Amino acid sequence: MDPGRPRIVVVGAGFGGLRAARALARAPVDVTLLDRRNYHLFQPLLYQVATAGLSPEDIARPVRAILRRQRNLRFRLAEVRHVDLSARRLETSAGAVGYDVLILAVGGATHWFGLESVERHAFGLKSIEEAVALRNHVLRMFEMGVQEPDPDRRRAMLTFVIAGGGPTGVESAGALSELIRLVLRKDYRELDLVEVRVVLLEASDRLLAPMPERLQRVTAEILWRKHVEVRFGAKVVEYDGERVVLQSGEMIPARTLLWAAGARAAPLAQDLGAAQGGGGRVVVRPTLQLPDHDEVFVVGDAAWLEVDGAPLPMLAPVARQQAAQAAANALRLLRGEALRPFRYRDPGSLATIGRNAAVARIGRLQFSGFVAWVAWLLVHIVNLIGFRNRLLVLINWAWDYLFYERAVRLIHASREMDHALAGEAVPDAQQAGGKG
Amino acid sequence: MDPGRPRIVVVGAGFGGLRAARALARAPVDVTLLDRRNYHLFQPLLYQVATAGLSPEDIARPVRAILRRQRNLRFRLAEVRHVDLSARRLETSAGAVGYDVLILAVGGATHWFGLESVERHAFGLKSIEEAVALRNHVLRMFEMGVQEPDPDRRRAMLTFVIAGGGPTGVESAGALSELIRLVLRKDYRELDLVEVRVVLLEASDRLLAPMPERLQRVTAEILWRKHVEVRFGAKVVEYDGERVVLQSGEMIPARTLLWAAGARAAPLAQDLGAAQGGGGRVVVRPTLQLPDHDEVFVVGDAAWLEVDGAPLPMLAPVARQQAAQAAANALRLLRGEALRPFRYRDPGSLATIGRNAAVARIGRLQFSGFVAWVAWLLVHIVNLIGFRNRLLVLINWAWDYLFYERAVRLIHASREMDHALAGEAVPDAQQAGGKG
Repeated sequence: MDPGRPRIVVVGAGFGGLRAARALARAPVDVTLLDRRNYHLFQPLLYQVATAGLSPEDIARPVRAILRRQRNLRFRLAEVRHVDLSARRLETSAGAVGYDVLILAVGGATHWFGLESVERHAFGLKSIEEAVALRNHVLRMFEMGVQEPDPDRRRAMLTFVIAGGGPTGVESAGALSELIRLVLRKDYRELDLVEVRVVLLEASDRLLAPMPERLQRVTAEILWRKHVEVRFGAKVVEYDGERVVLQSGEMIPARTLLWAAGARAAPLAQDLGAAQGGGGRVVVRPTLQLPDHDEVFVVGDAAWLEVDGAPLPMLAPVARQQAAQAAANALRLLRGEALRPFRYRDPGSLATIGRNAAVARIGRLQFSGFVAWVAWLLVHIVNLIGFRNRLLVLINWAWDYLFYERAVRLIHASREMDHALAGEAVPDAQQAGGKG
Repeated sequence: MDPGRPRIVVVGAGFGGLRAARALARAPVDVTLLDRRNYHLFQPLLYQVATAGLSPEDIARPVRAILRRQRNLRFRLAEVRHVDLSARRLETSAGAVGYDVLILAVGGATHWFGLESVERHAFGLKSIEEAVALRNHVLRMFEMGVQEPDPDRRRAMLTFVIAGGGPTGVESAGALSELIRLVLRKDYRELDLVEVRVVLLEASDRLLAPMPERLQRVTAEILWRKHVEVRFGAKVVEYDGERVVLQSGEMIPARTLLWAAGARAAPLAQDLGAAQGGGGRVVVRPTLQLPDHDEVFVVGDAAWLEVDGAPLPMLAPVARQQAAQAAANALRLLRGEALRPFRYRDPGSLATIGRNAAVARIGRLQFSGFVAWVAWLLVHIVNLIGFRNRLLVLINWAWDYLFYERAVRLIHASREMDHALAGEAVPDAQQAGGKG
């Protein structure tokens, strides 16, 4: 590190932050990367951790291992609490950190839409801790279900409701249904599968909103075949841990609600005092700068940039492309050159619904079924960071595919677990590690 | 399950309980296996989870998956609270469970020898939760160490003390030293390795007490070469989370103490009201029955059986052999046949100290170095349950061996972590998931 060089600080080691840090590797700058976790998480596969297909270690990699060779970079495990825009300084859990240029890639968070009872009792799916908490909970429901003599209570334990028909909701519903029908049925011979329900609730009348209509219909059909009950026009308004209440007044007794119905910007985005688009996302210029601060760039889920009247979606490709552009623009800024506006190159979109089943749009091409599923596998394996992670994930997938298994069916101890074992009332789902 | 058949209840799904359950597979009895976890844990490799070499999922396997094909068995996730010997009934978190024959394989627990300050602040290593808590803590000490300007505080963060020179202590010390010197040194270029200490404290004057003296000396020598400071005659009397105090009055500033200095029987063993040997272990007859209850067998760590004037050690081979014998004796009891006394066939013992370094005694043969290390690898791979676990562990080991890496360097979120990030005082080490 050279004290005379410009200091570029990158906040967040997700898809955006990592890409920005790497894009600065050869530049004559000092880069500090901050994150409150010591690992990069491959979020698109988090639902497989929640459904016992992968272990957390398979989809996470230490930031220091990834960036070990980048000599102009230092990593700091720290939580950023406040951005002092006028002093060009971050206040963090590890002290103050000054910057000449700041790239904020703080990512997204679950959007609860102000539904407090849902936030208290439902599971989110944004962190490893939440994914493991959900896995523990689902497996525990089966263990409790086989011991429960009361049929109403038993059915509520075996009803798994997923709110939100986007990629996370659709992929989770498919994976959960397969976990139950292909794997757990072998473990719990005493259970009657007729009592087990996986319900996917979508407030609008279509799944995977950005996909072409034909693929949306195919998705719903595949889910039906996998015994997922898909309900359109179903908006959750309340959940007390026992009953999901819909806007229509309908009530679904269920001990599990996965909330995949919304994403918003991480809380730090609101700290900037800048104008916001939807979901707390910060409005940025086409160059990805804050309107009033040339030296501050915001990228990824936390940024709101409209293209042709609509904001760019909260997806990994957007975050990566913006981060590369922000890093390039940061260097142009330091050299006194003109900055360039961001242009999104849409690589298409993919969602998997289970064995041999996926939908894919690449450019104007649309696929579904086995071909799309293979495309999904390839894209995810290639994008995983680290060859060892790729190898372990491939082995796990091959194993599950061939033997109809899921390796990671472990219930880790937690307060929730210990309460349940003690026969006491189950506390709020998320206390058991659900909140990162 | 056939209500007319004799009911054999096995408590514990460790090495002993699993072996007992399997030994009853073809017998005309109904078997109920109870455990408070839903997985079998391969405890001998737990120290590799604590030192970031393996993930918990690699060394644990769901009980239901292991025993899926055993038709006369049912598994219940439940904690046993009390054994009502006169009524032949267990009181559990899942209700009462009656038995005709009971096989208790409840295992061991950490023996704190009444040292309350140690129990509060040190890490044990008996469960997945404790291993992950220790891994998180060690990695966090490095992250905090690189940010700490005060040299005394920094050195205390980078001093790792292990109490107990048995297999767990020796293997942990070797693995921790290699983690630091081969892997973390690449991640933390800012750190001066001279400030990092791994200290192994042993109260007596020899390591690996049951090993031949020559191998004990070899072990100490290998540890020295791996930069572990081995201290004999060093007995811990107090630990406040900052300083390890020895009986001599000496004080070692250290933020980490792993307690591998003692094992005792699990608490349920004390509930029987039976005579106890050392460490709360229940005295059994040579047939493994309780003195006053023919229908109750105790095996493994919880049982105290003297052979030639000395109790059998708390080791997996003892537990397995006793469990097989208890199951056979249980069937003899039900058939009205004479029971047979237990005879231990010592398979030898093994301990690994790191790359290419181990000590082994098999019968009267003694090995050390590379040959012993290969023997250790083979024995552990063969004994791991489940081919998939074997494959994943082998890949992890091969990778680490070839590339001087450790995959699982993830710091999972916990209250401890969040306190540290918030810059607050660190609470008791074990609150952060340390207690299972």
